[in-house]
Amino acid sequence: MPIVVQKFGGTSVGSPERIMNVARRVVETQRAGHSVVVVVSAMSGVTDGLIKLARQVSDQPTDREMDVLLATGEQTTIALTAMALHTLGAKAISLTGAQAGILTNGTHTKAKIANISPRQIRKHLKEGFICIVAGFQGQTLQGHITTLGRGGSDLTAIAVAAALRADMCEIYTDVDGVYTCDPRIVPTARKLDVIYYDELLEMAGSGAKVMQSRSVEFAKKFQVPFEVRSSFNNNRGTIVKEEQHGLEHVVVRGISIERNQAKVTITHVPDKPGTASRIFTALSEANVIIDVIVQNVSVSGSTDISFTMSNDELDKLGGLIDHVAKEIGAGQVMKKGGIAKLSVVGIGMRSHSGVAAKLFDCLGAGGVNIQMISTSEIKIAVIIEESKIEEAARLAHTAFGLDAGPA
Amino acid sequence: MPIVVQKFGGTSVGSPERIMNVARRVVETQRAGHSVVVVVSAMSGVTDGLIKLARQVSDQPTDREMDVLLATGEQTTIALTAMALHTLGAKAISLTGAQAGILTNGTHTKAKIANISPRQIRKHLKEGFICIVAGFQGQTLQGHITTLGRGGSDLTAIAVAAALRADMCEIYTDVDGVYTCDPRIVPTARKLDVIYYDELLEMAGSGAKVMQSRSVEFAKKFQVPFEVRSSFNNNRGTIVKEEQHGLEHVVVRGISIERNQAKVTITHVPDKPGTASRIFTALSEANVIIDVIVQNVSVSGSTDISFTMSNDELDKLGGLIDHVAKEIGAGQVMKKGGIAKLSVVGIGMRSHSGVAAKLFDCLGAGGVNIQMISTSEIKIAVIIEESKIEEAARLAHTAFGLDAGPA
Repeated sequence: MPIVVQKFGGTSVGSPERIMNVARRVVETQRAGHSVVVVVSAMSGVTDGLIKLARQVSDQPTDREMDVLLATGEQTTIALTAMALHTLGAKAISLTGAQAGILTNGTHTKAKIANISPRQIRKHLKEGFICIVAGFQGQTLQGHITTLGRGGSDLTAIAVAAALRADMCEIYTDVDGVYTCDPRIVPTARKLDVIYYDELLEMAGSGAKVMQSRSVEFAKKFQVPFEVRSSFNNNRGTIVKEEQHGLEHVVVRGISIERNQAKVTITHVPDKPGTASRIFTALSEANVIIDVIVQNVSVSGSTDISFTMSNDELDKLGGLIDHVAKEIGAGQVMKKGGIAKLSVVGIGMRSHSGVAAKLFDCLGAGGVNIQMISTSEIKIAVIIEESKIEEAARLAHTAFGLDAGPA
Repeated sequence: MPIVVQKFGGTSVGSPERIMNVARRVVETQRAGHSVVVVVSAMSGVTDGLIKLARQVSDQPTDREMDVLLATGEQTTIALTAMALHTLGAKAISLTGAQAGILTNGTHTKAKIANISPRQIRKHLKEGFICIVAGFQGQTLQGHITTLGRGGSDLTAIAVAAALRADMCEIYTDVDGVYTCDPRIVPTARKLDVIYYDELLEMAGSGAKVMQSRSVEFAKKFQVPFEVRSSFNNNRGTIVKEEQHGLEHVVVRGISIERNQAKVTITHVPDKPGTASRIFTALSEANVIIDVIVQNVSVSGSTDISFTMSNDELDKLGGLIDHVAKEIGAGQVMKKGGIAKLSVVGIGMRSHSGVAAKLFDCLGAGGVNIQMISTSEIKIAVIIEESKIEEAARLAHTAFGLDAGPA
């Protein structure tokens, strides 16, 4: 019997009524002739409540105990989901991460999945049970409870699908799928039927928050196709899969934007080996998360280095960069918030020239000034004034022919 | 280093502040030179909240999933308690029932402890950790999560103390210890320094709700001495231990009462083999919990059988007994609520005659009519009108010299 893994996030299981809805959908899937494994997150709000409790007994709860505490969230959901399925007359059994055979390394609060032994799941599926697996958690070889960090339940679903060689993995969420651009900004944005792993990775890394990159990377690594779809309706979602070689690909799949960015420019950085390293080692040690880095060719022995980050990260900087700039004998340090990033993504741009030209052209014609440019093989990103980002998204969406036709 | 097991119930860990208090007490015990194992219950209210959630997805949640759900309660407490201990600078590690090596049979929601492998606990104690163990829960050999039913955390504490051959097991609760009688009824009641297992068993079975009988039985079986004491002050509590042979024992240790009882009398039950069995088999099949049973010698081929139960159980009876009485050819069935039981308990009464006489005498002198009498080796119980129970308790307390002297 074909195996389907269905993952439901915190909003989808956010109340007993919603858990009943999830149970109905799962039963339908089983009745349609599938073996079903369900992966669930903690009910929305539960994790925050637990974190609040922890703060009342400790300013800095240890990671190990935080994992023991947070793992109760998903354990609660698996039991309730199994009960809801029983109410509908289905055979169902709940499994914690440990019981499901999800083995991780020992990095508490952000453990990596080391191995999955799907023996228990297979056994229960063979007996006709629907298996409800707790997302986000696992255990170490020594039996310690671990959690997988942000987006961990998606990762559980994809890893379980990989281990079972499942026929499909469905990620149910509160959006309908992956769009060509955020529909709140570009009203003509369309839901995509298909997107490739690499494209979704570039979209995700550029602010389209459908899934965490690590889950997509995991799916890509183990070749698990999955579908992102809504738990609140029956519409088909977006299938995410491997690029098929030898086919013509769409040049631009979608456009993603990220607001609330800031940039730092250091001028006249001496063009000597090790200076860039000095700057970014200091940033890394201060746990500042950097996004785009741009350095142009050196003119007369010195160069300018610019990098972007979120505004929150800029606040963490303090005098760090000024200090480093002085040490390495650089010129001025300029910090500026209020900028945003627009990314155009598509596997087809590998083989098509002219994408950059078309982007710069349409933005220029619309009076949008480009401050920085950064490209990858399948993405072009530009940094612009935040106030212009919506207009820029609409201009690019139209320029690349992504607008939905008349209904 | 001497090992101490300390158990804290739901009220004692009912809020983050109370968990901090528990942590302070545990650290003091460690600093006094002990290896400490802490057993905790779910925070008060949490279990009820989980049951309420379950009812919203199922009228009859399965026992297995109920266990998965309820086990999150203690798991939350162990993590918070470990965090609180870290805040105080102590080394501490939390262990779920499964991690602590508590193996049970597969009877979900009222599992029996089959074995404890204290390997993990011993290892962590040796490394200087305080071990925080989740009470009330364990796992089966197949890895299913189980719970031990009512009073399960006391049982965990005593079983862990037995497995570790601990030097002491302290049961922290919201009362100061075991009293000669309920101080709300008999103001002169005294806290006992010592009580024997068998005495506490008779007291518990007679309504003194300090601990569930099964925990006391377990302690008796494995010869684990324990102390019942308050988590809200530093007073010494009551030590519960094995009777010491060859010593003179107090004749009467205490008096316990149970209100809200009912009795059923079946008259003219034919004195033939199997009739009593017919009655009590029917009651057992209907899950009616019976307390005292009294049958007097048969006069002219028939006898009267009386038995007591709580008023709630009486409500469950319906027409059951009338039906059975008819079948066996008995006479009338009389049902009556509004009665209560008074029990006088003491190991010393084995070797002292006159206890019954003194009890009947003092009650008679006080105008308390005795409706039924039942005795065990170390207990005499009488059934009286509920309205007279407080007066009867005070009369007996004085008659047996249990009143506290002037302070």
